[in-house]
Amino acid sequence: MAIKCTVSYDGTQYKGWQVQPGLKTIQGEIEQVLSQIHNHPVSIVGSGRTDTHVHALAQVFSFQTELTLEAEQFKSKLNRMLPKDIRILKAEKVSDDFHARFDCIWKRYDYYVSTDVLNPFTQNYMAQCSYPLDIEKMKEAASYFLGTHDFTSFTSAKIHEDKNRVRTMTRCDIIKYPSYIQMIFEGDGFLRYQVRMMAQTIIEAGCNRLEPSKIKEMIEAKDKHCCRYKADPCGLYLVEVHYEGE
Amino acid sequence: MAIKCTVSYDGTQYKGWQVQPGLKTIQGEIEQVLSQIHNHPVSIVGSGRTDTHVHALAQVFSFQTELTLEAEQFKSKLNRMLPKDIRILKAEKVSDDFHARFDCIWKRYDYYVSTDVLNPFTQNYMAQCSYPLDIEKMKEAASYFLGTHDFTSFTSAKIHEDKNRVRTMTRCDIIKYPSYIQMIFEGDGFLRYQVRMMAQTIIEAGCNRLEPSKIKEMIEAKDKHCCRYKADPCGLYLVEVHYEGE
Repeated sequence: MAIKCTVSYDGTQYKGWQVQPGLKTIQGEIEQVLSQIHNHPVSIVGSGRTDTHVHALAQVFSFQTELTLEAEQFKSKLNRMLPKDIRILKAEKVSDDFHARFDCIWKRYDYYVSTDVLNPFTQNYMAQCSYPLDIEKMKEAASYFLGTHDFTSFTSAKIHEDKNRVRTMTRCDIIKYPSYIQMIFEGDGFLRYQVRMMAQTIIEAGCNRLEPSKIKEMIEAKDKHCCRYKADPCGLYLVEVHYEGE
Repeated sequence: MAIKCTVSYDGTQYKGWQVQPGLKTIQGEIEQVLSQIHNHPVSIVGSGRTDTHVHALAQVFSFQTELTLEAEQFKSKLNRMLPKDIRILKAEKVSDDFHARFDCIWKRYDYYVSTDVLNPFTQNYMAQCSYPLDIEKMKEAASYFLGTHDFTSFTSAKIHEDKNRVRTMTRCDIIKYPSYIQMIFEGDGFLRYQVRMMAQTIIEAGCNRLEPSKIKEMIEAKDKHCCRYKADPCGLYLVEVHYEGE
């Protein structure tokens, strides 16, 4: 039997999603608890990795189990045993061939920039910008990322990784609030560091340090050295992961 | 010359306000930076202490200085040198005899209880309550604290501390939001642990574990052993400190 779980986490204390020997990671914490429940090592498959200090409102992972527990019992056992900054929102039975990474059809990431740099409570939860941000320039910048492009210029992926770097962005919204700016990115997939690189590029445009129309050239260059911008990981949230039939 | 500062801090990483040898405290961090700026030890006077993990939206402190800097320059120097989870919101020149503790005429504390225990982001910023809370019972409970009372039953102060334990509560509001409850406490002063003890007493009433009318008896008992409730410090915020002429 396979179980699919939706998990929310505050990434502040973690070295990202992926298990790494000797480091505190989200995957590591969850696998440790599941292995305790099963009395043998259990591996989980996530919808994708998140970097150090990146948060999730609804990451998805799955695992195989031989236990006859109800999905709801996995949820309550996990929440009892996991640290409080990792919370299982939902657990459900799925077919054995469900694959949290390959079956994902689209994802949403949000990026937050605080414009109130005197707020101590956003330091681990939003990027901080002390320059005035031109929201219209940010919206124009964001528009260049929409559609289907080869995003080689907006990833740090090594040559052998992600050979196909064509992705389709279906949403790239910029929303201004009194003390922060929210960016919403939706697409069929994201390359390594892609959201953080797009987010910082949009911020640079908002600070008038980059002409938005330059972004078109940057994308067309398909050159992994042409974008040196990468936003602070603490402003990034994995918000939704969608699968066929949802 | 004396400088009065308003400071906001995320108390998660600190052992409270008051300086303690070898421990990370808010007062300790601020005094260390001010001593660096002055090239000699500088002490500050706060409006009062806050406990380990308690937060502040607007704590007030003051210090004496012989430097000829503008108040605004103290603000920017302090913010440059302090950790990001301690932010100076305001600095102003005040008369030499200003005393941040004795001159305070009223204060406001807010207490937050999350009713969405699956939110990992509130774990350090709100108390967590998995029982359904009866908001009407909480409001009734809060009403008993309003007015002028001897709050001996609602403090852990030792006999020699705070000999006069009469305080006047001018506001004790309970406000329900979809995923949390906010309590607002205003008064001319608060004894040690008083807000946390009142907050947990109100929560106990909300969980139907305490009959609200019992609170009247508890106050009248003036017995420091009769209230064994004390709410989690991470839900508490010092919100406003007021002085004559403001």
